[in-house]
Amino acid sequence: MEIQGAHCLTHHTYLRPSSLPRPWREIVAEKRRDDDAKIPAHWKLDEDVIANARSRKQIAGDFIDSLLDSRTRHLTSADAPDLVDRMANGLLTAVEVVSAYCKRAAYAHQLSNILLEIGFDGAISRAKELDDYFTANGTLIGPLHGIPVTLKDQFHVKGLGTSMGYVGWIGTFEGKKDTGKEKSFESEVVRELWSLGAVPIGKNAETNNNILGYTWNPWNQRLSSGGSSGGEGVLQALRGSAFGSGTDAGGSVSMPAAFQGRFSFKPSSSRIASGGIANSGQRQQVMPAVVGLMSNSLATLKLVFKSLLSTEPWLHDLYTLPIPWRVEREYSAEKEPGYQPAFGFFANGGVVTPHPPISRALSIVKNALEESGYQHLASRLGPPSNNESAQIHGPITRGDGCPNAWEAIQLSGEPIIPQLRNLFPDGKLRPPISLLEFEKAVVHMTDFRNRYHDYWTSSAEKTRTGRPVEAVISAATPYTGILPGGFKIHELPQCTRLPNVVIPVTFADKNIDRVSSDYTPLTEQDRVNMATYDAEAQNGAPTAVQIFGRRWDEERLLSMARLVIDVLKKYSQKHGGRS
Amino acid sequence: MEIQGAHCLTHHTYLRPSSLPRPWREIVAEKRRDDDAKIPAHWKLDEDVIANARSRKQIAGDFIDSLLDSRTRHLTSADAPDLVDRMANGLLTAVEVVSAYCKRAAYAHQLSNILLEIGFDGAISRAKELDDYFTANGTLIGPLHGIPVTLKDQFHVKGLGTSMGYVGWIGTFEGKKDTGKEKSFESEVVRELWSLGAVPIGKNAETNNNILGYTWNPWNQRLSSGGSSGGEGVLQALRGSAFGSGTDAGGSVSMPAAFQGRFSFKPSSSRIASGGIANSGQRQQVMPAVVGLMSNSLATLKLVFKSLLSTEPWLHDLYTLPIPWRVEREYSAEKEPGYQPAFGFFANGGVVTPHPPISRALSIVKNALEESGYQHLASRLGPPSNNESAQIHGPITRGDGCPNAWEAIQLSGEPIIPQLRNLFPDGKLRPPISLLEFEKAVVHMTDFRNRYHDYWTSSAEKTRTGRPVEAVISAATPYTGILPGGFKIHELPQCTRLPNVVIPVTFADKNIDRVSSDYTPLTEQDRVNMATYDAEAQNGAPTAVQIFGRRWDEERLLSMARLVIDVLKKYSQKHGGRS
Repeated sequence: MEIQGAHCLTHHTYLRPSSLPRPWREIVAEKRRDDDAKIPAHWKLDEDVIANARSRKQIAGDFIDSLLDSRTRHLTSADAPDLVDRMANGLLTAVEVVSAYCKRAAYAHQLSNILLEIGFDGAISRAKELDDYFTANGTLIGPLHGIPVTLKDQFHVKGLGTSMGYVGWIGTFEGKKDTGKEKSFESEVVRELWSLGAVPIGKNAETNNNILGYTWNPWNQRLSSGGSSGGEGVLQALRGSAFGSGTDAGGSVSMPAAFQGRFSFKPSSSRIASGGIANSGQRQQVMPAVVGLMSNSLATLKLVFKSLLSTEPWLHDLYTLPIPWRVEREYSAEKEPGYQPAFGFFANGGVVTPHPPISRALSIVKNALEESGYQHLASRLGPPSNNESAQIHGPITRGDGCPNAWEAIQLSGEPIIPQLRNLFPDGKLRPPISLLEFEKAVVHMTDFRNRYHDYWTSSAEKTRTGRPVEAVISAATPYTGILPGGFKIHELPQCTRLPNVVIPVTFADKNIDRVSSDYTPLTEQDRVNMATYDAEAQNGAPTAVQIFGRRWDEERLLSMARLVIDVLKKYSQKHGGRS
Repeated sequence: MEIQGAHCLTHHTYLRPSSLPRPWREIVAEKRRDDDAKIPAHWKLDEDVIANARSRKQIAGDFIDSLLDSRTRHLTSADAPDLVDRMANGLLTAVEVVSAYCKRAAYAHQLSNILLEIGFDGAISRAKELDDYFTANGTLIGPLHGIPVTLKDQFHVKGLGTSMGYVGWIGTFEGKKDTGKEKSFESEVVRELWSLGAVPIGKNAETNNNILGYTWNPWNQRLSSGGSSGGEGVLQALRGSAFGSGTDAGGSVSMPAAFQGRFSFKPSSSRIASGGIANSGQRQQVMPAVVGLMSNSLATLKLVFKSLLSTEPWLHDLYTLPIPWRVEREYSAEKEPGYQPAFGFFANGGVVTPHPPISRALSIVKNALEESGYQHLASRLGPPSNNESAQIHGPITRGDGCPNAWEAIQLSGEPIIPQLRNLFPDGKLRPPISLLEFEKAVVHMTDFRNRYHDYWTSSAEKTRTGRPVEAVISAATPYTGILPGGFKIHELPQCTRLPNVVIPVTFADKNIDRVSSDYTPLTEQDRVNMATYDAEAQNGAPTAVQIFGRRWDEERLLSMARLVIDVLKKYSQKHGGRS
């Protein structure tokens, strides 16, 4: 006993200060200083500008625009196909484009604290290479030549770290030290992006984290940006990159896109490579997170998706399907004369009534389709309920107790952010559910998906075309950007993992958007949700709808999203912007 | 207490005889009588013929042929493309074809006890319909018009029961009574087969079950037929249908094909619809069983696969990939002049040395490739080991304790067959492994698959073509048909779920196939396995190799299998049949 005691003492005595865990706040402070140094001095905002921004309700739109020179404003208002065209014609250089977006991203970050990794230097060097290539060859290096992209800090990019917001991951590779992979390993999709000519300029935060703090909605800074790809949503709203890449296991891309009034596109799983992404939910591979894209333009999203497929990712990533872009699945009125696609239309998902601004956005889309002669089938009562979907989604995605997140948090001793507290009741790791319970949820999921599929197929009996509806329109979320920690509910049958596109429609307007006098709650959840609606607080928040398609039929879905956007434009021209 | 006791007594006293479980042997006897009645009297074999068959070593080949009329022999020796051609030209009727195969299947069943469901009557009626269709329209109903097919008794076929060999499933739908689905529900792939013109004539047993007993190898009735699709292997060896359909989670189609010297083709998961198949391993969807095909001809397997894809199964089955037959992935010397595919070649899988007859079969293939100028890369030491694969496969496929099988067995009180006893030690259901252990195995699987993929891709550095090897040739099993309950080990990296084709090569020959004097065991398992080799006992058993391809690249794999068969034919013509 004595010897053992002596040993302990010796051990304690000789413990070097360097192996004592460093206080997590120190690590964060150092990282923030380092990152700050990556913003060139001439892009630094004055402190009073930042203070002004903090005090304002809205910083997206006019406010950030007013801080920028007109050339930067001009370049950052274009979409990717337009920028690529101009570079291909020698009217623009990649350095001009990348620099403009880096500057704007630098501004956005100073206003909103969203970049966990800053890569402006490397991005501008890469842009120079691209310009040299163009000068030497007279052609672009690829279809995304010179297009600035940001990524959720879950993707690995050469030259940048990856923390996912975990303090303990700073300076490591996924929490492990000295792996040789730090800042050199790349996610497969990032490799593809580089090869296509795209230029990563930085990486975005999860909506809340102990490194940068909470990410607020730049349209209304009292509201949440949504999660988990909230940082990307904000950066897109502030137009800091031409497109962004997030991951989505149950609305993590579509929700921030909707809250920020941006376009998003989440394909079915296994069409965009998810290899080499940190904690990508592959632990049991039943419902892995998929890579989703966000942008200010659907045309950009389509270009990026087509370009990624053109690299034949399936040759490099075993879990990506060998399905190239299928022109034959695209719809156009010219290709299919006389055929007028029909849409499904869910005014609600059977669980909650959307808040008035969202219901109005849905009505606008419905009226727009109607005026253009497209059939839409109301089908609230038909499909298996979203509540049932949620019962499946929980055990599958969180049934294991989320040990990955737990371990990452433990590394530094950082506090658990409020958004994760329900995963770790009493600040402890929960025991996993049993394998049999888990299997029960998976069997339930298969059954649910099959019923959903059958329900969808059966819509052919109700359409004028005799074919099933091509896509379904519903709320993306039943509210505009909520107050942080507010009541949360999804409005998509998450466990189906159907591909979806979020389409911004209009903005909440306290003068129009009031709870109808004949409103009756569908469920208790509905009552709770509607009680959180505050017309004043949510005034000015973007409203969006989502359109979802059939599994692995992304080409068709993107055509349908285009169609909806076009009829909305037509409708808006006729009836005025906000109708 | 008294009341409770009285209640028990009352309950006991009034228990009606009809609700007492019927002795399982009675249920079996009744089923066997019913099934026996489905064989027409003029196809019944004499008892002395059956007794003779039982006493013989070999019943495949000459013995069964000698029992049949020449017309039946002639029709049942053709392959499906040939039969379809002749029917299309009016040289044959579907009734002739189907009747011939039904007759032969009836003989095969009487000799080997393999059909769990007999559907001759319905098959011949369907054939009449097909003939009427041809008479009326002058065309075939589909690319498999009039082709007799058998299925493992796990597929649901209208008009037939499904027991999977479980006594408790007899007269039920997957163990449940009065569901309305009994004998009417159909598996998706069966629906497709009917629509293509194929004619199901019966369903085959798992290799051992308490309804029909053990299924022996018809080439050497002292040996096992392999499992779990052993019944189908035997029926193919006895040529009782043009092709058969089984399920494969880890060699369940390839092993019986190899033991019986037949061709098999197992695609990657999700290319053939697996919807609506009983107990298809979808409980956690990580490694679901896939539908595999068996036949006497590779051309038949290709025709069936192409035909199934032509029905666009993905429109009906949510889990089937929307990938049609891709002509562009097929290889031919004409299409790719100057390109000579290279092959990987595993003399062993790093765990056991195949028994001498299998090593000889591998040498034949190697020499045949060499003589035709095709490069083959020996790569024993490179890939992740099959042992590692087995460590992954176990927890994923059996980690839950197999409650499905357990519940099915409990329904009737039938004894647990020896092949399943290790799943239920001491005759009890094992508790499942924890969800975290399960997830660990899945993460390991992903890593293993990725390393295998990388290893494969890296072969490009060693080939003359500069491209990775097109396919890998290895033993399908490291022995010919083993003695029942003998040492079992797989020779494929099961957990990769790569598509494979089994190609029969020759037969074990006790005069040639001797353990080499310089044999040194690779592992303890190798030593145990080699000690089970008995040249005398295994004499005459078929030997086969497998060729496996890359994930979801079935078109290419089938081309490569064709190439190997062609070089083998050329080699055999030059060197004689058995060399």
